Amino acid sequence: MEVEIKFKVNIKDIKPKIEKIAQFKHEEIQEDLYFSVPLPKLLRIRRIVNRNENILGYKLIKDRRNEEFDEIEVKVGDFEKTREILKRLGFKEDVWVKKHRYVYKLGDATFELNHVEGLGDFLDIEVISDNPEDAKNKIWEIAGMLGLSEEDVEPRLYQELIREREKIA
Amino acid sequence: MEVEIKFKVNIKDIKPKIEKIAQFKHEEIQEDLYFSVPLPKLLRIRRIVNRNENILGYKLIKDRRNEEFDEIEVKVGDFEKTREILKRLGFKEDVWVKKHRYVYKLGDATFELNHVEGLGDFLDIEVISDNPEDAKNKIWEIAGMLGLSEEDVEPRLYQELIREREKIA
Repeated sequence: MEVEIKFKVNIKDIKPKIEKIAQFKHEEIQEDLYFSVPLPKLLRIRRIVNRNENILGYKLIKDRRNEEFDEIEVKVGDFEKTREILKRLGFKEDVWVKKHRYVYKLGDATFELNHVEGLGDFLDIEVISDNPEDAKNKIWEIAGMLGLSEEDVEPRLYQELIREREKIA
Repeated sequence: MEVEIKFKVNIKDIKPKIEKIAQFKHEEIQEDLYFSVPLPKLLRIRRIVNRNENILGYKLIKDRRNEEFDEIEVKVGDFEKTREILKRLGFKEDVWVKKHRYVYKLGDATFELNHVEGLGDFLDIEVISDNPEDAKNKIWEIAGMLGLSEEDVEPRLYQELIREREKIA
């Protein structure tokens, strides 16, 4: 299971703190197209622009705080053809989430530092584990090292935040 | 559009005739898993065993003789993960079609000579064209050269033939 907690951050402030404790892995320019499937399911195609890769991803949210997920991802050879197949199968397009992601690792924890177009900066701390409690303890230990607390948590999904923003605009 | 006519053949008899007029391209060991989607749609994952490739394929049948198709295919990195995503999205597995395919080319016509597990031998002659009538004329011209006639045509889909066979068994 993927256990992940999302924090609202400011890249300028948090980046030096992350770089003191974790190892930089790579950057990704991601363009995620979400399809309308009933929660707790999520369905998206991710285009990783700077790596010329496309990933079809399915997630099942396992908790009410959007912190525990079953995830299945598979590489696909072509973004537009995958999009067309999903459309032909009846899936409606929902929202795009576009982000610049910096990935760091500390032991078995992954830091995904994201600048999300239109939403600002977020840090997802992720641990793959069959024991969500252990994983969350580990995440909170790291969050503490970065000076992040419960009030910095953003429990909403990116696509929910985008949808709310589109409603206001 | 993909225009294709399927003939019931005997590989031993037809192979030498094909090899006189067309150029051999390659062989594929294909394992196709079809999902239950309402006709005229088709949805399958194809595993090309001898090339270690997997293809997610969607087809829309455009005519009553199963000769005209809109087809969208995309390579996927992993057969089982794609299968799991489709299952999680609610698609039920229908039938497996397993075949050994020999591919030949003559101009813009493709010959797919198939030995299908449990069904026997078939030759699909295929032309990609926006003009189905032209394409069919071309296919029939080739069929004539191979000694095939209207009574050799098999209008049913492979998965229909497999399903009928399973009913009898």
